[in-house]
Amino acid sequence: MDEITHKDAALAALAAHFDGMPPVRAMQPRILEQRHGLLRLHAPLAVNVNDKGCAFGGSLSSLMTIAAWGLVSVELEQAGLHADIFVADSRVRYLKPVFEDILVETVFDDAAEHAAFAQTLRHQGRAGIRLQARTLLTDGGVAATYVGRYVAIARS
Amino acid sequence: MDEITHKDAALAALAAHFDGMPPVRAMQPRILEQRHGLLRLHAPLAVNVNDKGCAFGGSLSSLMTIAAWGLVSVELEQAGLHADIFVADSRVRYLKPVFEDILVETVFDDAAEHAAFAQTLRHQGRAGIRLQARTLLTDGGVAATYVGRYVAIARS
Repeated sequence: MDEITHKDAALAALAAHFDGMPPVRAMQPRILEQRHGLLRLHAPLAVNVNDKGCAFGGSLSSLMTIAAWGLVSVELEQAGLHADIFVADSRVRYLKPVFEDILVETVFDDAAEHAAFAQTLRHQGRAGIRLQARTLLTDGGVAATYVGRYVAIARS
Repeated sequence: MDEITHKDAALAALAAHFDGMPPVRAMQPRILEQRHGLLRLHAPLAVNVNDKGCAFGGSLSSLMTIAAWGLVSVELEQAGLHADIFVADSRVRYLKPVFEDILVETVFDDAAEHAAFAQTLRHQGRAGIRLQARTLLTDGGVAATYVGRYVAIARS
């Protein structure tokens, strides 16, 4: 496969993966964009709404969790590595209510850690990495921030 | 209403509340027990399962988030106080996979803060409180831990 086809295949696999998990499918996440070191997800407010008419905090947290998980997953697949990826810990700050569709963006926390990640996994069979995510508002504001640590374990 | 009826009404209201939020309803949480300072929730694995056949981390996080939110909510209602309750921040540690139905237990983090909470809300119209939650395994293990800070704002 050439690079674009390979990338499309990895994204299609991630979308299918999300769709295969009932609690994730319920949030209806859609991958908007993925490029090296960045992934953006969209989810409709209507299926993620709370009692106050804005986005449920648990949905924001879950969407940021799977966005970061998805970015790690896609980049490893694109590097030809097959691994199980687990979230180890996470921290969320809820800053503003979200009265619109949810937009989540995730990036790696540390460029050097990101650069070494695939190599560490390849050599040691296991690697950990930290990502950040944010829930962004159309007015330019940030509704929530997330930091999560993920562990990848190579499939034998 | 006598105390028991009042308590039942507050729990029924909480269950209806959960059911009214699409992303929460999708996780099918059921209130197992609530008493002063403690609430326990159950959710079936089948609707909260991930790609590895165990519970989705986002579901664990969300269930601990709503358990703690629910405990604050029920206790304020039982105290005759009406408030909007928001989660302000949270931290989750994922320790073990959950290959069974999900059991979440939440308690207040600090007894003195808990004791002062309703009074602070009554007098100042606003109060913050920290809760802990855990996802418990039938073998006695702990699958995940949670700490979250909540803010209640009195409804005028």
